[in-house]
Amino acid sequence: MAENTSFEVQFQPIGKRVAARADESLFEAARESGIDLSSACGGEGSCGQCRIVVLSGETTPPNLDEEFILTELELQQRERLACCTYARSALTVQIPRDSLLTGQRLQVAADLHEIDPDPLVRAFTVEMAPPTLEDVRPDLTRLADALQERYGLRDLFAGPPVMRVLSPLLRESNWHVTVFVRDREIVAARGAGGSAGEQRPLGFAVDLGTTKLAAYLVDLESGADLASAGAPNPQIGYGEDVISRLNHAVRHPDGGKTLAGRVRESLNELLHELAGQADVDTAQVVEACIVGNTAMTHLLLELPVQQLTRSPYVAAVGTALTVPAVDLGLDMAPGAYVYVPPCIGGFVGADHVAMILASDLDHRDKVVLGVDIGTNTEIALHKPGVAFLTAASCASGPAFEGAHISDGMRAAAGAIEKVRITVDSIALTTVGDMPAVGLCGSGIVDVAAQLFEAGLINERGRFDKDNPRVGSGRFGPEFCLVPARSSGSGRDVVITQKDVNEIQLAKGAINAGLQILLEATNTDPEEVEEVIIAGAFGSFLDVKNAIAMGLFPDLPRAQYRQVGNAAVIGAKWMLISRAARERAEAIARSTSYNELTTYPKFGRKFALGMLFPHRRR
Amino acid sequence: MAENTSFEVQFQPIGKRVAARADESLFEAARESGIDLSSACGGEGSCGQCRIVVLSGETTPPNLDEEFILTELELQQRERLACCTYARSALTVQIPRDSLLTGQRLQVAADLHEIDPDPLVRAFTVEMAPPTLEDVRPDLTRLADALQERYGLRDLFAGPPVMRVLSPLLRESNWHVTVFVRDREIVAARGAGGSAGEQRPLGFAVDLGTTKLAAYLVDLESGADLASAGAPNPQIGYGEDVISRLNHAVRHPDGGKTLAGRVRESLNELLHELAGQADVDTAQVVEACIVGNTAMTHLLLELPVQQLTRSPYVAAVGTALTVPAVDLGLDMAPGAYVYVPPCIGGFVGADHVAMILASDLDHRDKVVLGVDIGTNTEIALHKPGVAFLTAASCASGPAFEGAHISDGMRAAAGAIEKVRITVDSIALTTVGDMPAVGLCGSGIVDVAAQLFEAGLINERGRFDKDNPRVGSGRFGPEFCLVPARSSGSGRDVVITQKDVNEIQLAKGAINAGLQILLEATNTDPEEVEEVIIAGAFGSFLDVKNAIAMGLFPDLPRAQYRQVGNAAVIGAKWMLISRAARERAEAIARSTSYNELTTYPKFGRKFALGMLFPHRRR
Repeated sequence: MAENTSFEVQFQPIGKRVAARADESLFEAARESGIDLSSACGGEGSCGQCRIVVLSGETTPPNLDEEFILTELELQQRERLACCTYARSALTVQIPRDSLLTGQRLQVAADLHEIDPDPLVRAFTVEMAPPTLEDVRPDLTRLADALQERYGLRDLFAGPPVMRVLSPLLRESNWHVTVFVRDREIVAARGAGGSAGEQRPLGFAVDLGTTKLAAYLVDLESGADLASAGAPNPQIGYGEDVISRLNHAVRHPDGGKTLAGRVRESLNELLHELAGQADVDTAQVVEACIVGNTAMTHLLLELPVQQLTRSPYVAAVGTALTVPAVDLGLDMAPGAYVYVPPCIGGFVGADHVAMILASDLDHRDKVVLGVDIGTNTEIALHKPGVAFLTAASCASGPAFEGAHISDGMRAAAGAIEKVRITVDSIALTTVGDMPAVGLCGSGIVDVAAQLFEAGLINERGRFDKDNPRVGSGRFGPEFCLVPARSSGSGRDVVITQKDVNEIQLAKGAINAGLQILLEATNTDPEEVEEVIIAGAFGSFLDVKNAIAMGLFPDLPRAQYRQVGNAAVIGAKWMLISRAARERAEAIARSTSYNELTTYPKFGRKFALGMLFPHRRR
Repeated sequence: MAENTSFEVQFQPIGKRVAARADESLFEAARESGIDLSSACGGEGSCGQCRIVVLSGETTPPNLDEEFILTELELQQRERLACCTYARSALTVQIPRDSLLTGQRLQVAADLHEIDPDPLVRAFTVEMAPPTLEDVRPDLTRLADALQERYGLRDLFAGPPVMRVLSPLLRESNWHVTVFVRDREIVAARGAGGSAGEQRPLGFAVDLGTTKLAAYLVDLESGADLASAGAPNPQIGYGEDVISRLNHAVRHPDGGKTLAGRVRESLNELLHELAGQADVDTAQVVEACIVGNTAMTHLLLELPVQQLTRSPYVAAVGTALTVPAVDLGLDMAPGAYVYVPPCIGGFVGADHVAMILASDLDHRDKVVLGVDIGTNTEIALHKPGVAFLTAASCASGPAFEGAHISDGMRAAAGAIEKVRITVDSIALTTVGDMPAVGLCGSGIVDVAAQLFEAGLINERGRFDKDNPRVGSGRFGPEFCLVPARSSGSGRDVVITQKDVNEIQLAKGAINAGLQILLEATNTDPEEVEEVIIAGAFGSFLDVKNAIAMGLFPDLPRAQYRQVGNAAVIGAKWMLISRAARERAEAIARSTSYNELTTYPKFGRKFALGMLFPHRRR
C-alpha cells in the first residue's frame, strides 16, 4: 500500500474526524490531530493504556503485543491498542473513557500563605505633546523623556517587538499611554483611554509538571489571583515518563521541536483560558514564571537533552533563565519575559526550588522534610544551621499516577480514590461517584495499605494464595475490588501481584531517598518535626494509609502537612516579588544535590524500602 | 481568466525561467524570482526603467502609460514596460542591459586611516574535566567555572541559541573549546581542535545604502580586513527612493515584512560571499555593525515607518540598538548581535554618524563640511568650540544615481562616467569601455558642467535653442551625446531639458542645505577649510566640474577631499573598537539635526541653489 494513502477515522465519543495515513498508527494519527490518548510507553505497544474499540471499517490484524495484553473476548469485541492498529479503510473508533486524557481532576489550589507583592514590572501612565516640525524627537525618545520628567525614570529602552507597536499606538491613543516597565526596559504599552483594569500589569505562573500543567493569572501589583486553570501535559502522547520523552527528542528528527511546540501550544491555551476567565487581554500579561523539573524546562526551551538521557545525568543549563516570551511563541505582551528559576541538580529542577520557597522550608527553625511526589519524586531535608539536602528519587515512576498498574488511571471520573477493606467487605469512593473503572493514586495507596493490614499480602508484598479472597488471574494471584457486573468498564477492577510489586518499587525508591538524606546529614529520624507533602497526588492522599503501607516513614515526632501544588505557588511568588526571586536563587545555591545511585548502600536501602512495615496491631 | 493561471516566462540573456501568474505583471513575476529589474517608481508605470522586449508569446496590449513613455517604433519592436505587461501565454522576454540591476560597479574602498582594535567580543580557549557521578554540574556552569579559573572571567552566561549548541559541542570536542565572550555573555563556542584561524572572532560591517550595500569581513582582534563585497539593495524593485519604499511597507499587507526579508536575504548572501572569499565559517562571525539612513535601518529591523512617510518625519527609534542576529535571520554565530548605531534625526541616520566618525570630523580643529551624496544627501558642518550641525537634503533625490534622467543609469558597463564637451567635439569615457548606453552620476555632473561651460545652457538651465548643437526631442530641446548608430542600446543617448531641470532640483536642495548650515552656525564661507565628499558617487566625481555646475560651492580656502564610502569604514571601526562605538554615540548626542524645510528662507535658497554659478572665464 502506498505510504501516502490515507483514510478518514472518526473518533467517538468526541466525534472528531481525522485523516490517518496507512503507515501511521491510529495512536499517531490521533496525536497529530490533538487527541491525546493515554499512554505510558509512548506508543510502543507495551503499556496497554491506549485501548480503543473499532466500531466499523477495516484495520491491520492484532499483533503479538495486542494478543498478549488483550483478552480473547476483548479482541473478539474488536478492542485494540491504538498504537498497534493501522487503518485499511475509513473507520469509526470508540475511545473508552480511561484512554482519553481529558476531563481529569486537576488540582491547582494549595494551602500556603500569601506574600507582599514587589513586582519587577510596574505600570506608568504618561501624556506627551505630539511631534512638530520643530520637535522631531524619535517616538521612543519622546516617550522616555516624558517618563523621566514625570516619574524620574532614567535610561529607558525597548526591544524591537515593543518598538513595532509603539509608534502606531502613540498616535492612536493621542499620545496618552500606560507603559509597563521592567527595570529600565519598556516591555509593553497600552492606550490610557481604557478602564483601570486594562492598565494593570498581569503575570502568568505555571507549574510545568511531567503529567499536568497548573497555572495562575495574577495581578502583579496587588498579588491577587485573577484566575487558575490546569491542563494535561500534551507531551504525554510521546511517553509518560521523563526518559521516554527525552529519548523521543533525541531520536526523532525535530523531536525536540515537536515536544517544545506541543507544550508551548498548551501554555497558550491555558493563558487564553485564564484571560477569558478574568476578562482581560493577554497583551497585558507582561511576565511569566514557569517551573518544572530539569527535563521539562529543557524541553520547553528546546535545550539539548541527550546528556540527560544517561548517567551521569547532566543539565545543559542550571542557572536561572530570562527568555523573551516571543521566542517561546507565547501570546503575551510584545516585550514580555519568561523567567525560569534555577535548578538544583540532575532532574531536581525549578519546580522543587519553587516548592521549597512556597513551603518556607528555608525559613524554618526545625528539621523539616519536604516531599514532592510526582512522576519523579523529589525530597528536600532542611536542618537549621547545617544545610539543605535534596535527593531525586528518579525511580519512583508513575505508579502513583496510575501508570504501570493494571487498572491504574488518573483521577478522572470513575477512578477509585478511597478504599477500605474490612474482614468481610470493601468500601470504595470514586471520583464523581461514577461506577468504578480503575484506581487513581490515592486509591492505590489505600489498597496497598488495606491489603497489608487485612493480612492479604505479607511484608514482602506476596499475596496469601491460601486466602479465599485472593483470586487468580493471568499474572498470578490478584484481588478483585469491583466485579465486572458492577464496574463502569464491564471488566473486573483488580489489583494483581505485579501491581503490588510496582507499588513496592515506587515506595522503595522514595524510602531509600529519605533514608540516605537522613544519614547524609547525620539526622536521627527522631529529630524530624515536620513532613511537608507537596504535589497534587500528595494532597488527596490518606497519610495514615501511606504510613501503613510504608510509603512514608512513621517518624515519631513528625507532623505531616499536605500543601497541594506548592510549586505553582512558588512560581507565583517569584512572579510578584523580587525578594522571592532572590530567595529562590539563594535556595538553589545553598541546596546540595545528592545523586542517590552513587551511595554504596543504595541498592540495599532500596530493597529494604520495598518491604511493608511491621504491622501495627 | 482565472487568477491562478500561470505561464512560463523565460528571461534572456540570463536564461532564467519563471512562472508568471495571469494577475501579476512581468515586473512582479521577475522580482519574486529574484530578478531585480531597474525601477524608480516601484512598478507604478511612471519611470520607464523596467523596459523589456517580448521576443515570443502573447501578452496584454500596451496600456496608456506605455503609449506615453515608449515610442511607436519601440512598441512595434515589442518593447514594453515589465510593470505594465501581463503574460497571456508562455513568453520569452529580453532584458536590455540597463534594465537589469546586476554587474554594477560597487565601490567599497575608502581612503581613510585605520584604528586600533579593542573589540567587544574576545576569544578564550579552555579545557575542562568531563562530568562524573560525583560532579554533575550543568554544562554551562562547568564551562563558566573553567573560564573563571583560567581567565578570571566572572558571572558568564549564555542565551538559549548558544545553550542549544553548547552541550553537544563540549562532548564532540572532548571538553576542549574556544568560546567567544561579549562582556559577560558567551555568544559562540567552537571546538578547539581546528586551526588558529578557525578560533578567531570575526565581524561583519555593512553600509546599508538606499541603492547599494557595501560590506567588510574583519578580524575583530587584529582589525584586519579579510574580504569586502558589494551588492545592490534588493528593495530597489519596490521603489528607487526612500519614500516609495516606505509607502510600499505601509500600504501593502506584509509590505514591511517583505522589504525586511529581501534585505536580510541580501545580507546573508553578502556574508556567505565574504566568508567564501576569506575561507572562513560564517559561524565565526560574532558581531555585525549595520549603518544606514533612518528609513533603511527601520526597514531592516521591521520597525513602524508610517510616521516617516509624512512631515514631520519622525523615527520610531533613534537610539543605538543591539539586536540578536538570529532575530534578523542572519547566518552568524548563534549568540551574535547586530549593532545599529544611533540616528541623528529625521532621515539622517547611523550611516551619517559612521561617516562623521570615519572622517574624524569630530576631532578636527578647523571648520569642516562633510557631504555624503546618495539618494538622500546628508551634510555635516563641524565648527570647533561651537557644535556639529547636520542637515538632511531630502530633496536631492536619485538624479545623481541615474534615476529620473532620461538616459540615466547606474555605474554599470556602458555607463558614461566622464564627459568633455569642447567647441567641436565630445569626449567620453564609459564604465568597462563598452559602447555607451546611458549616463551614470559622475557623467551627469560632467555633462551639466560642460554644457554650461560651453554656453549650451544658461544660468537658469535653459538650453540655447538657437545653438545648432542643441537638438529637439519629444520633451523639447535636448543634447545628443552619442547617436544611435554608435551607442550600445541602438538609441540616441541624450540629455533633455527635463534632465537638466532634475539635476538643478538635486543641486538646489544640496546648496540650500549648505547655505542654511553656514548661516545657522554664523559661519562665513571663507572660514570653511575642508570639504569631505563621502559616498560611492562622490568618489568618482570630478570635483572641478561639480563646482563648475554649482553642485558644490566654490569655497575660497576649502580643500576638497573624496573619501569614498566612509560609512562602511565607520561601521568597521564600531565593530572592532569599543572606543569608536562610544565616540559614535557621543557624535549622535552632540549633533543637532536641522530640518531644512522649517527655515523660512528655504524656498528662496532652494531656488537660488538651482541656478548655475557665474561662468569662470
